[in-house]
Formats: sequence, C-alpha cells, structure tokens
Amino acid sequence: MRELNVNLGERSYPIYIGQGIMEQIGELFAKHGISKGSPMLIVTDSHVEQHHLPNVIRRLEAAGYKITSYTVPFGEQSKSLRVLEDIIAVALQAGLDRKSTVVALGGGVVGDLAGFVAASYMRGVKFIQIPTTILAHDSSVGGKVAVNHPLAKNIIGAFHQPELVLYDTSTLQTLPDRDVRAGLSEMIKHGLIWDANFVAWLEENAEKLVHLDAEALEYGLYEGCRVKTIVVSQDEKEHGLRAILNLGHTIGHALEATAGYNELLHGEAISIGMVGSAKVAVRLGYSEHIYTVTKRILQAFGLPTSLPQHLDTDEIMSAMMHDKKFDEGNIVFIVPTEIGKVEINKNVSAALVREVVEQLKLEV
Amino acid sequence: MRELNVNLGERSYPIYIGQGIMEQIGELFAKHGISKGSPMLIVTDSHVEQHHLPNVIRRLEAAGYKITSYTVPFGEQSKSLRVLEDIIAVALQAGLDRKSTVVALGGGVVGDLAGFVAASYMRGVKFIQIPTTILAHDSSVGGKVAVNHPLAKNIIGAFHQPELVLYDTSTLQTLPDRDVRAGLSEMIKHGLIWDANFVAWLEENAEKLVHLDAEALEYGLYEGCRVKTIVVSQDEKEHGLRAILNLGHTIGHALEATAGYNELLHGEAISIGMVGSAKVAVRLGYSEHIYTVTKRILQAFGLPTSLPQHLDTDEIMSAMMHDKKFDEGNIVFIVPTEIGKVEINKNVSAALVREVVEQLKLEV
Ligand SMILES: NC(=O)c1ccc[n+]([C@@H]2O[C@H](COP(=O)([O-])OP(=O)(O)OC[C@H]3O[C@@H](n4cnc5c(N)ncnc54)[C@H](O)[C@@H]3O)[C@@H](O)[C@H]2O)c1
Ligand SMILES: NC(=O)c1ccc[n+]([C@@H]2O[C@H](COP(=O)([O-])OP(=O)(O)OC[C@H]3O[C@@H](n4cnc5c(N)ncnc54)[C@H](O)[C@@H]3O)[C@@H](O)[C@H]2O)c1
Ligand SMILES: [Zn+2]
Ligand SMILES: [Zn+2]
Repeated sequence: MRELNVNLGERSYPIYIGQGIMEQIGELFAKHGISKGSPMLIVTDSHVEQHHLPNVIRRLEAAGYKITSYTVPFGEQSKSLRVLEDIIAVALQAGLDRKSTVVALGGGVVGDLAGFVAASYMRGVKFIQIPTTILAHDSSVGGKVAVNHPLAKNIIGAFHQPELVLYDTSTLQTLPDRDVRAGLSEMIKHGLIWDANFVAWLEENAEKLVHLDAEALEYGLYEGCRVKTIVVSQDEKEHGLRAILNLGHTIGHALEATAGYNELLHGEAISIGMVGSAKVAVRLGYSEHIYTVTKRILQAFGLPTSLPQHLDTDEIMSAMMHDKKFDEGNIVFIVPTEIGKVEINKNVSAALVREVVEQLKLEV
Repeated sequence: MRELNVNLGERSYPIYIGQGIMEQIGELFAKHGISKGSPMLIVTDSHVEQHHLPNVIRRLEAAGYKITSYTVPFGEQSKSLRVLEDIIAVALQAGLDRKSTVVALGGGVVGDLAGFVAASYMRGVKFIQIPTTILAHDSSVGGKVAVNHPLAKNIIGAFHQPELVLYDTSTLQTLPDRDVRAGLSEMIKHGLIWDANFVAWLEENAEKLVHLDAEALEYGLYEGCRVKTIVVSQDEKEHGLRAILNLGHTIGHALEATAGYNELLHGEAISIGMVGSAKVAVRLGYSEHIYTVTKRILQAFGLPTSLPQHLDTDEIMSAMMHDKKFDEGNIVFIVPTEIGKVEINKNVSAALVREVVEQLKLEV
C-alpha cells in the first residue's frame, strides 16, 4: 500500500493506493475520525453497484457503520441537479446529520456528483472517495465537485476536499477496456505537464498498464496522483498554476461538446486535444520532438490521436470560445514547451487553433 | 451612513447602512474591486423588481457596469433547485465568467437563492447583497446561502460570504406592514440573545420602527447586524456559538413546517418560538421576568405570541424532531438565562417542550 498526502493546511487528506486495501476500510475510516454514530450514505452507479457495492457495505457494516446506499444510472447524465435532489431526499430519509459522511463509490461521475451532495447537504458534510476507475485518480484529487447544467458541463459545483481517498486497484479489474485506456490518458497528461521521467516510464509500461498489471497500476496511479497533488497544493482554488492541468482540455472539451458524449470518452477527447496542443507548440517554435513523443505514447496506449472527420470545425471553435477557460476574451491555452513541461500561454490566437483543429482531422 | 465590518480573515466584508446610499452604488462597488470587464447578474423577485430594479440598473449602468437581471416569482417557492437551474442558464447566456458578480436585490429569499447561485456557479463567483427587507439584516450577515428541498428547508446550500452589503433604508418604505413587523422580530431576537440595552432601546422605539422612521431604522439595523456579526465572526461555520442565533427557531421552524408557509411568516413563527423559549427558561428555574419582558416587547411590535389553536401538537413535535438542530438524538435548545443572555442547553427534554407548545396555544 502506498500513501500520499495532499497538503492543503487544515483541509489536508491522505490517498491510500494498493491492491486489496478495501479489506482495511473499517480501520482506515475509523483512523480518520469517521463517525459511527451518524448514518453514512454511499452513492454509486448501476455498473459499480453490481461488481463492488455489496462488498463495501458488508465490510463497513461489519466495522459498525450504519449504511444507506443509493445507485444512480451509470453515465454522465446522472451528474444533474435532478439526481442531486433525489440523493438529498434519500439522505434526509436516512437521517443524515452534520456528522454524517457521504461516500462516492465509482468513477468520476459518481465522485463529482456525490462530492457536490457532500458539499451542499446541510452546507457541507464529510466526504470520502473510493475511486473505481483509472480516470478517477484525476477526479479524486483536488476537491473539484460539480454537476452539469443542460447548457454546460461541470458549471454548478464547489471545492470540497475529501477526508480520505481509498484506491483499491483490484476494483479496476472489472473496468471495460475502453475506460481503462481513457483513464490512462489523464495519467499520461500528468506526465506530460510535470515529469519527463514518468513519461518515459509510462511508455515502457504501456502494455502492463493497459492489461491492469497490479504493480504497474499502483505505481502509475501513485505518480499520477502525486503530480496532481503538487499542482493542487500550490493552487487550491484555481487562481493560476492549476490551469496546467487543462493540457489537451481546451480542444478536448470542445470535441466532447460537439461529438455528443457517446462518441468520445473524456480521456479520448483529451488524447486528441493533447496531440493538438503539441501541434500548437510546434507552430509556436517549440521542438518537433514534443509532437513526436506525445503522439507515439498516446498510440502506444491505443488512444485516438486524430479528430473524427465528420465533426464540424466551426462548431468545435464556437464550443471552444464558450469554454470557461476563456477569461475575458483572451484565449488561455496550455502549451507544452518540452516533454514534462508546459506554459500557460494567453496569446494563442483562435485562428492558429482553428488551423490545428483542421490538421487534426488529417492525422494518421 | 453607518459602516460595519464583518471580520472573517480574508473573507471579511463591510456592511453599509443608510438612507439613500443607493446613490453611491457605483463608487461603493468600484471601491471593493467589482470588475466592470465581466458581465454582472442581478437577481430579484417580482415585488422588488417593480419598486427598485430600474433604479439599481440605471445607476450601475451609468457607472459602467454591464448588467443582466433576472426576476423570480416572489415567495419561498423560488428557493428551489429548479429556479437555480433557470438562473444559471441566464448567467451562461449572459456570459458570466469567473470575475463576474451576482447581486441579490431583495429579501432573504432572493439573498439565499442568489447567494447559492454565486457559491456554485463555476464553483464560486463574487456576491453582493442589497437587502430590501428588515428580515434581511439577519440573512445578509453570516454567509449562509441555500435553497429548499421538497422535504426540508435550506437543506442544500453553502457558506459564501459577500464582497459587501449595501443596505439602503429607503428601499424599506415599500415593504408591506406585515413583513416590516416580521423582520423586526429577528431584530428583537438579536437583542434578546446579546444585549439588554438594545432590548430596552427596541421597546422604547417600537412605534418608530414599525412606522419606518429613518433614523430609528438605521440604528436598529446597525445594532441587529452588529450582534449577528459578533456571533458569526466567532463561529463562521456553525461549530458552536452560532447556535444561539436559533433562539425561538426550534419551535419556530416546526410551526412554519406545520402551518404551511402562508399562515405564518418566518418572523411571526419565531416570535411565538421566542415566547416558548422564555417559558422553557422559566420552567428550568430562570426568572419569570424573562417571560414578561419577552412577551411585552413582542406585543409592542404587534407580533403574535400565541400558537394558532388548530395546529396539531403531535405534528409540531414530529416536525421538531426532524429539525437539523437535533444533533445525534439530543435536543439542542437555546434558552434565555436573563434578558440579553442565552445558553445552549443540550438537555431540554422533548416532554417539556411539548408541554410548552400546548401552553402556547392558551396564551393571551
Ligand atoms: N473533479 C475533477 O477534478 C474531475 C477531473 C476529471 C474528470 N472529472 C469527471 O469525471 C467524469 C468521468 O469519469 P470516469 O471516466 O471515471 O467516468 P464514469 O464514472 O462514468 O465511469 C466510466 C464507466 O465505467 C463504469 N465503471 C466505473 N467503475 C467501474 C468498475 N470498477 N468496473 C466496471 N465498470 C465501472 C461506470 O459505470 C461508467 O459506465 C466526468 O464527468 C468528468 O467531468 C472530474
Ligand atoms: N441566510 C440566512 O442566514 C437567513 C436568515 C434568516 C432567514 N433566511 C431566509 O430568508 C427568507 C425570508 O426572508 P424575507 O422575510 O426577507 O422574505 P422575502 O425575501 O420573501 O421578502 C418578503 C416579501 O417582501 C417582498 N419584498 C421584499 N422587499 C420589498 C420591498 N422593499 N418592497 C416591497 N416588497 C418587498 C418580497 O417580494 C416578499 O413578498 C427565508 O427564506 C429564510 O429561510 C435566511
Ligand atoms: Zn480531464
Ligand atoms: Zn430566522
């Protein structure tokens, strides 16, 4: 088991990562002062429920916790105010009080949704994350929680840090292959923005990671979380540095919005977005090597690196201009300056990005 | 113009109170760093819109602000997730970004609702309160913002402090008499929990206040805000002391829930609740004088002091036991120990409260 501490003053918390650590869930909760006197609510989704919920409930009940669980339909649609209202009804009926804890058992969807429940129920109760996807190594660090609005993703939310994160890599064995790869895309992003050695390790271990090798996963998730932790610790409320986490996301989010959420998973969209960022870098005069390595590593993980031809460039650009990372009209673009380093560039023109988007349709 | 500072470290903010201070709105906003580069959203309700919105928009536009406004139907019903979602659609369409400000122009309903919009839109933007009711001297201090759930009031919310509060007493001239008195009920509460001199002043100035005398209002609102400010500064997140603000509210909330929100205004319900608290105090051995003075002053303001006979005691009690101030099964009751002082008593039995509720039906 590896342990990582996210340093945020009085809101600091640990991330535990390891195979089979679910067995220690009772002790870990107790160690972090989670009350047995107040009812606890576990939020999960319909896929994760089947594979993992009974085990989690059984262990927590054995440890003396009073558990209520609520299962939402799987998928992004559940990140809505409507579902939030349903969950809060369940919390009220189960008698959750200010000392209660809300537990997210699932991927980023459940984490963001249950996290916003925890942030807003009675103006804030305790929150614990039990991530069950690889992508969730990203979403479970940093305290960003949110639901979607029909007009915009993640627009209604809060910063709400968990008490702890319990990452049992054995839960990942049931994850569909496409979600495995999409999650690894964010892990690669963490390498590309911060740590060239980690990028090299990722490329060497692509096969192991894709096939869910326990040791490789534990190390990769630890390093991915570590990079995110460093960034978040330095900029909890996204005033500056934290923007580097958006590498590949400016284009990626626009693709998600344009393609509809079924065609491209988040990790797939940002994979294409990261190739786009590398192309922007080269156009700005940075080394061609950035583009070569970025593309090669994403392909080693079986991730998409070209943009579906049928997507309309105008639509993509207009989705991009509404993106909340455009601050008072200036484009803020995360540009890699070498492998393992990026800059927050506020002067990338929309025209250049448009050209890169067009070129991404022609990538092979 | 009086100025009061709410000390909350980096979240500190000023409250400006005075007749006609709306004329200085442009300068005050600018003084507190409110951006003219990003669009601003004013949220108001259908009553306040008629009387005050055009004036506020005109002055802010003259000062160079880009304004969008949104009017919700008046009344408690608007404090819902549904209305929140509508407002966020408007915010998105108006292009509000992270540097934007949400302004609440109205009473506690608009303040709580717009405040939760500001707390959750893009995970938090700036917030300004322009209270237009007397009750809002209470709701605009302390940073509690929330919407209701069909099953419970104020259960979905956040702590989100405003940048400033601008309290122009001349906006109160259009407030219906019943809302004037109900708002003064919270002002009396602030006296009863903290300041016997203020209680004496309130009793002497009851007539002036009820008739909206400008000077009396300015002083009363200032003192009311001051008491709340002291309490909130010492306990921002409601870990302890802040509970004393709930004098009269344990019974009051149960009455509101049982009577339906039309029969009793919040201030009326807590007026009855404060008489109940005084009766509890006497039953616990504190001076009879507490009861006499509490009742006399509330009557001087034309506030109700007896409980409507048709309300069912069982229903009231069961509404009370679901109240979120019952912490792990113990009743937490705010008991006056003399005029201007209260204690947080965790050992008041439900049986005693039930007897007092019954007696409140027989008060004259
Ligand atoms: N808060 C943040 O900082 C942050 C960061 C990145 C992404 N996100 C959010 O995360 C979400 C995407 O996360 P995700 O990719 O984990 O999506 P997800 O939660 O929808 O999980 C992907 C799919 O895998 C299923 N699943 C999850 N765990 C499983 C398991 N162990 N076995 C079998 N099936 C399993 C889910 O039911 C779902 O169908 C998006 O909503 C995104 O906005 C948030
Ligand atoms: N956040 C807090 O700390 C806190 C504290 C106390 C109460 N509250 C909340 O405040 C709300 C009650 O506040 P309220 O009594 O101000 O209610 P309100 O906002 O509904 O206002 C009362 C009525 O007066 C009208 N009105 C407001 N200003 C007016 C004006 N100047 N002229 C004419 N009409 C006007 C409104 O349209 C409404 O019909 C409740 O929802 C309660 O939960 C919050
Ligand atoms: Zn992402
Ligand atoms: Zn009140």
